[in-house]
This record gives sequence, C-alpha cells and structure tokens, in this order.
Amino acid sequence: MQPIAHLPLVSSGSKVQALAGLPEVALAQVETWITAPAKGGDAWGEVKRCLLVRVTTDIGIAGWGEAFVLPCREKAVAEIIHALGQAADSLQSVWPWAFRDMALRIASNHRGLDFSAATSALEIALWDIYGKLAGKPLCEVLGGDAKRAIPVYANIWSDTQSDAGSLAMRASDLVAKGYAAVKIHPMLNHSAPEAVQAVAHVRDAIGDDIRLMVDMDTQDHPETSFFVAGKIASARPYWFEEPVDGQDIDALARIRKTTGMRIVTGEKQCGLPHFRAVLAAGAADILNPDIAGIGGLMDMLEVADMADRQGVMVSPHCWNSMTVAAAAMLHVCATIPNAEMAEMYPEYLEHGARYATNGFRVDGVHAHLSGRPGLGVDINARALRDLSEHFQSSLLSKGQSPR
Amino acid sequence: MQPIAHLPLVSSGSKVQALAGLPEVALAQVETWITAPAKGGDAWGEVKRCLLVRVTTDIGIAGWGEAFVLPCREKAVAEIIHALGQAADSLQSVWPWAFRDMALRIASNHRGLDFSAATSALEIALWDIYGKLAGKPLCEVLGGDAKRAIPVYANIWSDTQSDAGSLAMRASDLVAKGYAAVKIHPMLNHSAPEAVQAVAHVRDAIGDDIRLMVDMDTQDHPETSFFVAGKIASARPYWFEEPVDGQDIDALARIRKTTGMRIVTGEKQCGLPHFRAVLAAGAADILNPDIAGIGGLMDMLEVADMADRQGVMVSPHCWNSMTVAAAAMLHVCATIPNAEMAEMYPEYLEHGARYATNGFRVDGVHAHLSGRPGLGVDINARALRDLSEHFQSSLLSKGQSPR
Repeated sequence: MQPIAHLPLVSSGSKVQALAGLPEVALAQVETWITAPAKGGDAWGEVKRCLLVRVTTDIGIAGWGEAFVLPCREKAVAEIIHALGQAADSLQSVWPWAFRDMALRIASNHRGLDFSAATSALEIALWDIYGKLAGKPLCEVLGGDAKRAIPVYANIWSDTQSDAGSLAMRASDLVAKGYAAVKIHPMLNHSAPEAVQAVAHVRDAIGDDIRLMVDMDTQDHPETSFFVAGKIASARPYWFEEPVDGQDIDALARIRKTTGMRIVTGEKQCGLPHFRAVLAAGAADILNPDIAGIGGLMDMLEVADMADRQGVMVSPHCWNSMTVAAAAMLHVCATIPNAEMAEMYPEYLEHGARYATNGFRVDGVHAHLSGRPGLGVDINARALRDLSEHFQSSLLSKGQSPR
Repeated sequence: MQPIAHLPLVSSGSKVQALAGLPEVALAQVETWITAPAKGGDAWGEVKRCLLVRVTTDIGIAGWGEAFVLPCREKAVAEIIHALGQAADSLQSVWPWAFRDMALRIASNHRGLDFSAATSALEIALWDIYGKLAGKPLCEVLGGDAKRAIPVYANIWSDTQSDAGSLAMRASDLVAKGYAAVKIHPMLNHSAPEAVQAVAHVRDAIGDDIRLMVDMDTQDHPETSFFVAGKIASARPYWFEEPVDGQDIDALARIRKTTGMRIVTGEKQCGLPHFRAVLAAGAADILNPDIAGIGGLMDMLEVADMADRQGVMVSPHCWNSMTVAAAAMLHVCATIPNAEMAEMYPEYLEHGARYATNGFRVDGVHAHLSGRPGLGVDINARALRDLSEHFQSSLLSKGQSPR
C-alpha cells in the first residue's frame, strides 16, 4: 500500500491516485445535522451548534465529516454542502482529490471561510470512506502512525464565565483532571489591565509546571497586544495567539519580532496563498488552521508541509464537536512531523459522548487514536438526531438507482 | 443635513448617527429572491444567478439590497441574510451603522466572502431605506453628488464564447454601442500564448482609441502573468487585473514593480485588514472591491478613503445584477474622490430591465444616476418572482405586531 502523504498535493490538478484494487465509488446520499446549543457535560460554558455530515456511497459505505460553523451561518454551510454534493454527482468517482479539484474549480479562487468549511466537511467524509475501504486508520493511509501519542491542550472559554476567579478555578479543575496545558482568553469582557491580572491569577492557581497559553482573540489595535505581551511575560505564557486579525500579517510579524512571544495564527483562514504569505513574512511560530474550516484535509497537510520546511509548527484549532473534526485533526497530527499540541474542548468531549463512540481517547496530556479504519468514529445517527435542531438530506442519482 | 461620508467610519463602535428628525425603524420582513440563470438580452453569454433582498420596516418603507453570489453558494448566502435579519430584530433601530456593528460582533473577525456578501446585501437595503427617509439620493446623504457622470466600462465574459474571434466581435459590438472601454478575460480556456494572441486580436478589432483592460482571473503561477504581461505590452492594456490570487500580496507587488502594468485587485476580498495590507505593500494601482461582497457600503467607503490617501483608485467590481448592486456601486462612485471606471455587464442590463426600472442610465461612456431617493431603483417584485428559482421570506416581530 502506497502512503500518499509524500505525493505532491497541489492546489489543482492533484496527482494523487487511488490505491490499486479499490472500487470506484459514487455518492448516493448526503445528510447534515446541526446540533442544538447545549450545556457542557461538566458545568462549564455552552456547547455551540456543530454541523456534522454523513456521506453514503453507492456501495453502502458511509463516511463522516464536519464543518467549522459560526453564529448565523450554520444552515448556510449546510446548503453549500448539499449543493456541492449535487455537483459531485457528476464525478466518475468521488475520491477526495477528485472532489477537491472539483470544489476548487467551482470556487475559482473565491473560497472564503463558509465555502471552505463546506468543502472541509465533505473531504473529511470522503477520507473516512477511503480509510474504511483501505481497512486502515486514516493516518496510516496518509503515511502516519496510529500509535503515535498526540499532545493536546485544553481550551478554557465561556460566554458566561470570564472573570479571573472563574478562569483560575476552571484551569485548576482541568489540571486536576490531568491536563498539562491550558489556554485562556483573558481579553474576553476585560480591559487590557484586567486581562494582565487574569493571566497572573491563573498562573498562580496552576503553578509553574503547567503550560499556559494566551489567546488574544484578534484585537482591533496592535497596541493592545503589545501592552499585554509586555505585562504578562512574568507569567511565562507558552504562546500568544491571534494578537490581531489574521489578515494583518505585518502586525503579526512586528509583534513577534518585538515581544519575542511565540505567535499563533491561522484559525479562521483558508487557502494556501494566505499561509504562504504568513510564512514568507515570518509572522508565526505556530500555525493553527482548523481542519473543518481550512478547506480540507489535503490543505491541512500542504500547509503543514510548507510550515515544516521553515521550522514552523502546527497546532490545529478545533472549535468543533470533539467527535468528527477532532478525529480528523488527530489523524493529521499523527501524520505530520511538526504537530504541536492539538486543541481540546473538555466540555465538548462529554457532549460528544451522548451520540458518538470516539475514534480516540484523551488522557489529559495526550490523545490516542483507536486504530479503527478511517476516522474511527462511530456515530449513533438517531441519538445525534435527538440532539439536533436541523436535519437535511439529499438523495443523489446513485442513491435512486443503485448499481 | 449633515453628510456622513467624512465622519469616522470605524470597524467597530461606529460613531455615525442618524440625521436629526428621522424616525427610528425596526425590521418587519426580510425577503430574498435568487434569479434563475438566463440568456443575456443581446445574445452574449449567460446571466448568472443573482440574489436580491427586500427589507421592509415597521413603518412600511422598504429597501433593496443584493449579495455577490457564486455557484453552489446562493442559498447559503440567503440563509445568512435571513439569520442576520432575525438577529437584527433585537436592535432598537436598524440604522446601517447599528446593523454593521452587530454583524461585526456576530462574526468576531471571522467574516469570509459569503458572510460578507450577506451583510453587504442587508446594509445596502438599509441605506436605501435611509435615503428614502431622508428624501435624497443615497450619494447625497453620503456627501456625494447625484449629478456626477460616472465613467464605466463593459466587461466581456462568457462561459461558452472565449475564442479570440468571439472576443473581438463582442468588443467591436460594444464599441459600436458607445462603450469606450472594454475588459476581456484572455486566459479563459486559453494557454498563455493563445491569450497573448487574443489580446492582440481584440486590440486590432477595436482600434487605438478604446481602452482595453486585461483580466487574468487569478493565475496559480505568477510566472504565467509575468509572461503574458511582457507579451501584451504592445497592445497597451489599460490595466492588468488579478494576475494572481488576491491573497498573494507579495506576488502582486512584484508583478506591479517588474512589469509596470496598472495592477487591479480586491474583487473577492472582504474586511479592512486585507485592503490595508495591499496598500501597505504597494501591490495595487486600483482596488476593485465589490460592494455586494466586501461587507457593506461603509467598508467600501472606508477602503476608498484609505486608497485615496495613497493615490490609489477604486474601480468597483460588479458581477451582479445590473439593478440593485450596480446602483449602490454608482452611488459610492458619485461620493468618493478616487472613482475609476465602474464595471458594467451590458447583457445583464437588458436582463434587469425585465423586472426593474433602474436607478441609473448608461450612455456607454458614463452612468448617470436618476436623482430619485435612496438607491433610486424600482423593482417589480412579481416580475422578479417570475424570473426567480428560489424565494424565501422571514416575518420579524415588528411585522407581526405593527407599532
């Protein structure tokens, strides 16, 4: 079996080909679920709406995918997924790279976040199918190692609890559960001086041996991030994420150079030209694209490869369900040489357990893949439906007249 | 009456305020139409799907907007429009700047093209309402002059006719109709050497006195654009548009510096940080944001202002219906000091006449606004419905219980 990770994954006209002996597959059905907002399983924050997709082929094998979605856009991304499913009906065989080429043609370099989230979801599902057909964990099809222990960190975010005391308590709780790295968003509902105090307070609470990451949530004014960076140095933040809008590459580079902080950027970005520009400007130590938003798994691998050649790490963003997108993210982390810690939302893990048997387990410090074929995730579609506020199904031509 | 164009239109927390004496308005209904693809009125090319929106207020006055849409994404953008309409129901008064602040908060710096197209459509509709309430053409509310003659050019694009002979014939036809500037897409279905020949052929057909613009449609490899730029110099292209992906700012700057061509970029971009970066890099002579895609009319004004301070012109892109979005574009052109030629699709003008009395007329060289209040466009909603393949309506709380 040929691993494909080292084949050229180019932006168009991809040369990747199917493993010998695999049957050609066409799409029979595309289904999408948008989960309802829910309380997190451990009384912290809210689990946002997530968008999951199941792609069923004409030979019966199905794959799961997920799209990164934001408020007011969940149904929109679902509509793009169904429209792309219809478009893929004309493909002779929906291998992930054939789908990707089609999607790039349709977008003609006009992608943007919502369209890229839709292509991500479908491409992940097609890779899941591909892994199942090959009978191997996805990462092994890609040239990776399903036994690799993947470092993770816990994100601490809540739309209701943002005071320093709550952050410190949540951080301590997660450390008690075994996490060795936590990330906070100190600017949320805070002035810059309050944010500085919150970082110090959390550091005091968790002690010196835990990694503490600071997410600045794209400040409008670089000055704010310069000020905070200077004031929090004594709390030894492991990284300094999104100090400004990710499109402001010059400011990212200046902040990196002046403050000496490890700069993380890329979570809302899509397409290779952007990441190429960030790398060319020396604007990041770590890229954090989201596998459910960047455009697809192949974009993720290509960005990781470009980054690796410059000594830049990849710590994938994952503000998604901790079921499908997280599994896809971890298969990438088990494949690339420059994986930094992968992002985990602990309260989402408990929510996901209501409808899924995950393709990985988390011991706090690491995630471990299950070794099952494809993504390895097993979804109870009926339980998912019960947790969802929107469901949509498209039957495609191969579904109406099975071969 | 205070013109607002010179008030600070900032990315968040806008300080713009309503004219004294205007009533507060809330949304009562949001309706969207997606037109069916159609033959152009003059046997050239196809008119793509367009997405129009009507916003009706609780005092009965309605405004029209339009979103830039691409294949597989039309219904998606409509979904975002309706979701944002629901969100706007919580605003005390839906002035355009209040809506913009709300949309920016919802996006939290994660906009992307489809979301920005949706906010553009709604913001344009709110400005139409605002102008109608003020009893003035929109450009005059913004500090512009409705009597200004606005230079235009004709775009030549077809998904079926791309050979050099067809391009030359179409260009000659448009010149015969009075257009003094035409733009072609020579790379469409062509190799680089064929494109070079096509440019020469069109120049021969139209003679020396007509402006000829070349759109490269975002080449994957800068080398292609370097080659073509070198070979077409003798045909004296007025500008050289999108030689590479708009996110590849470094390549744009290199092409501009090396070839000396007037570089045009920005049509698929949104958000101010991107345009700030293009200007900082000296990567463009002319920006061509699309008023129906950039995020809204206020973004358009702010980008134009940033550009003007560096001597950069704005030639708005408008691959939309020639009814609503084009009117909004022309009101901006009648307001800003650095308007280059505005984009016209002649075959779309004839299609628009089937359901709209336009807010402007085109004599080939210039567009002239009607002087009617707001955008000045008058849509026959029934005729529009007959031309549409998708219609969606949201009734909001103020519509259910009129004040």
